[in-house]
Amino acid sequence: MQSTTTVPFPSLDPRTGEERRRFLDATPDELGKALAAAARSFTVWGDFDPALRVTVLRGISEELSARRDQLTATAAAETGLTGQRLAGEIERTRLQLIQFAELLENGGHFDAVIDPATPDRPDVRRVDVPLGPVAVFAASNFPFAFGVAGTDTAAALAAGCPVVVKGHPSHPETSELIAAAVHTALAAAGAPDGVFHLLQGSGLGIARALVTAPGITAVAFTGSLTGGRALFDLAASRPRPIPVYAEMGSLNPVFLLPGALADAAVRLADAFVESLTASNGQLCTKPGVTFVPRGESGDRFVARAVDRAGEYPPGTMLNRPMWRHLVAGAAELADRPGVTVLAGGSAPDGEGSSFPASLVETGLDTFLTDPALAEERFGPFGVLVRYDTPGDLVRAVASLDGHLTATVHLGPGDEDDGRRLAAGLTGKVGRLVWNGWPTGVAVTDAMHHGGPYPASTSAAHTSVGTGGIARFLRPVAFQNSPQSQLPAPLRDSNPLGITRRVAGALTTESITGTTTTEGRAHA
Amino acid sequence: MQSTTTVPFPSLDPRTGEERRRFLDATPDELGKALAAAARSFTVWGDFDPALRVTVLRGISEELSARRDQLTATAAAETGLTGQRLAGEIERTRLQLIQFAELLENGGHFDAVIDPATPDRPDVRRVDVPLGPVAVFAASNFPFAFGVAGTDTAAALAAGCPVVVKGHPSHPETSELIAAAVHTALAAAGAPDGVFHLLQGSGLGIARALVTAPGITAVAFTGSLTGGRALFDLAASRPRPIPVYAEMGSLNPVFLLPGALADAAVRLADAFVESLTASNGQLCTKPGVTFVPRGESGDRFVARAVDRAGEYPPGTMLNRPMWRHLVAGAAELADRPGVTVLAGGSAPDGEGSSFPASLVETGLDTFLTDPALAEERFGPFGVLVRYDTPGDLVRAVASLDGHLTATVHLGPGDEDDGRRLAAGLTGKVGRLVWNGWPTGVAVTDAMHHGGPYPASTSAAHTSVGTGGIARFLRPVAFQNSPQSQLPAPLRDSNPLGITRRVAGALTTESITGTTTTEGRAHA
Repeated sequence: MQSTTTVPFPSLDPRTGEERRRFLDATPDELGKALAAAARSFTVWGDFDPALRVTVLRGISEELSARRDQLTATAAAETGLTGQRLAGEIERTRLQLIQFAELLENGGHFDAVIDPATPDRPDVRRVDVPLGPVAVFAASNFPFAFGVAGTDTAAALAAGCPVVVKGHPSHPETSELIAAAVHTALAAAGAPDGVFHLLQGSGLGIARALVTAPGITAVAFTGSLTGGRALFDLAASRPRPIPVYAEMGSLNPVFLLPGALADAAVRLADAFVESLTASNGQLCTKPGVTFVPRGESGDRFVARAVDRAGEYPPGTMLNRPMWRHLVAGAAELADRPGVTVLAGGSAPDGEGSSFPASLVETGLDTFLTDPALAEERFGPFGVLVRYDTPGDLVRAVASLDGHLTATVHLGPGDEDDGRRLAAGLTGKVGRLVWNGWPTGVAVTDAMHHGGPYPASTSAAHTSVGTGGIARFLRPVAFQNSPQSQLPAPLRDSNPLGITRRVAGALTTESITGTTTTEGRAHA
Repeated sequence: MQSTTTVPFPSLDPRTGEERRRFLDATPDELGKALAAAARSFTVWGDFDPALRVTVLRGISEELSARRDQLTATAAAETGLTGQRLAGEIERTRLQLIQFAELLENGGHFDAVIDPATPDRPDVRRVDVPLGPVAVFAASNFPFAFGVAGTDTAAALAAGCPVVVKGHPSHPETSELIAAAVHTALAAAGAPDGVFHLLQGSGLGIARALVTAPGITAVAFTGSLTGGRALFDLAASRPRPIPVYAEMGSLNPVFLLPGALADAAVRLADAFVESLTASNGQLCTKPGVTFVPRGESGDRFVARAVDRAGEYPPGTMLNRPMWRHLVAGAAELADRPGVTVLAGGSAPDGEGSSFPASLVETGLDTFLTDPALAEERFGPFGVLVRYDTPGDLVRAVASLDGHLTATVHLGPGDEDDGRRLAAGLTGKVGRLVWNGWPTGVAVTDAMHHGGPYPASTSAAHTSVGTGGIARFLRPVAFQNSPQSQLPAPLRDSNPLGITRRVAGALTTESITGTTTTEGRAHA
């Protein structure tokens, strides 16, 4: 590979359109060096002893904390997100890092299973090992939590995988600052060179080169369906295919059942608009379509939501392409037959990249026949679908593609309809929310942030919560191994003191008296 | 889809070449009906209550037992495998079914995680749910254990997924008999129509139609690299991609260290030839390449192995195409520079499809430079690679692709070399065997039967052992759910009595006093 010159791309302030700095796309030469260093570092970084990784994960958290003010100010200038929102996001990013450190300290990532020998078969023990160097594509809308040291990077580093991150071109200066924090933490812990590398880039070339590089063993991505599918297709067509864990957003349907609205239409409308406009609607869990019963209480919900949307000051979109996409999408929907614009719907006059909270209304039959209404529109934009009776919602559920989330609001008398909806929705989503809102993804063991295609390319995997580490691990079984040759998590003495499944039962005890056999040819 | 007529394909006795019966490829109409019935059955079959599935899995095991004699005789006539080998395989197949039934009874497949609400976040609970209808491609070499009701079908049925099996055209009558056993067990348990369907077929058309059918949610396959990769590519190119779990065999390198041979060269040679010729070498875990030190003890190993190979009566290959492939492959290797045929190497005169135990020898440098030596050759055929010092084996390990297994034999003085080999091999294989042989895959919790590509298309998944159920499940999180709307495995009262991870700790206890919240817009 040779160095090639690249065209600089700018860091822009979406609030003003002002150019802040220029950045260069990473060259093939830089990528080649990063991959070679990542491969060299893997032996040390992927060791069965997770102590170094624990130190580094905690160190990154500390470094992010120490740089909070600079990180927040820079990200605000590059994304238009508020300082308060960004400060909260840094805390969430730190929580992610610390939860993975705790997981490693408890040995929960090993998934150690020991089946001592029986008269019929040899001793077999299994433990999870890291895949190898991993490519992470950072998101535009969470410069920290899904950014250069976000949930994907944290999970891969925790697993023992060196990480090459492609930063999002929408906030390159923020990416650079985060990368500096990571490098400081790695150096302080004495980690080998190559564990982490940030590639900047606005073009497709570096992304393609990264995903097709022979040394890369898995890809994590958060972004659009188009982008995620392109990476998936590239990875599947490699001589040696690798998994792509792409979280590609969704419509996140919300079902308001009549009983829920009876006494609470106003309160629910307020909460709905708060969820719709959180981070200016630029969340992959935004409630993009909401099913509202026809009739008096539904009308009250809609009227209140329209009022609240009107009070919401137009917010700045993350970048100009995203703003243009929303402007065009809103205009397209406004022209569809059977669709009424109730609030917002077009950009205010002037420069900037702002857009108002917008609501359009349609009927269930129109929704079911016009696919444009089921497209995700990033930004503070929601579709309200009016239905006659809860029984009609069965058709709506059947029509749904895979989604990250679905939400049901139920009240007195809605229990049976709720059960019917839940039965159908469980087959369509990664998370089912009751009497709440889909925005806000709790960083916890039980969280599942993913879902059937097209919400993600791997329905079995989450990108949020400690479960996300599974994306970067694979099991290896050790058969009839001498104790001295076993990895520490599998030794009889349980030197790490971890929980293991031994002969079918979970235990932290050590094992006495296992033996190895010799020379049995086959079972 | 319409019915189309198809050309009949024969069931042949590979021992004689005699035609037994003719079978028809399934038509698109049959496939369409099978898929529609599978989709209809999913609601009942995929229920959170696994009782029906437990009954059916145990019932299939009983039905196989009751039909043992007919199954064994028919399979022997269609595969050329011995009655003893096939009777053992039926027992293994029953064990697989019963282990999955036990897993369901213990609730181990739910992977239930409960994080009760905290002041910072809502209650979140997660449980695994089945994917939907699954396609299984049965293998040629294990008519029972990897056949129509083999490990893939058992895992998918246990998960709650209806199964459409493509039977292997090499033993259609055996497939038909197994399918009858499955249908009897389903009917006796009162299972809905459509849970299971066998498609016969010798052409590619029905395979392609099955993998690209919109209603199919995952594919399991055991067979060749060419076949597995073709299915993987088809599935990845679908509008809605689905996972393909293809186990595609491997070379299964064996490393004999000098200390292991010092006192045991003869015994190890006997065991090696037993492993090489088990099931006439038609196992995906056959030791296809064995690294033997140069010098006296290595020479003794080789001489004894050649003697034992010569004593092995030529065995019948599973089918004529496999035999032709081996004949051609053996002839190709015999002509390579630096390769010496030590035993066998060509088919005996006469009809039939038999082939003798065959060994070729080469040096490490030739092995590292001639890719023909690293190709899998199905049948009783092994490559012996002579090396000078254990330090040279580092290059051999570095050259390896992904394999199902690797094996190390070590003795006094080999400990450090063993550690070096293990470190490298752990990154290349799904199972590392010590002082044993790779053939014989224990059906147990800790087993991992899979490996990095090209051994399989999904290094994180096993096709043998209870872990194989994970291929057909995905997690769904339930947030802030009323108790009455939660699936049984996640209810506070723990009505199923299963082990769950509650607030980070594993427990079978019920939970008291959790609450749901309302209306928080986002975190």
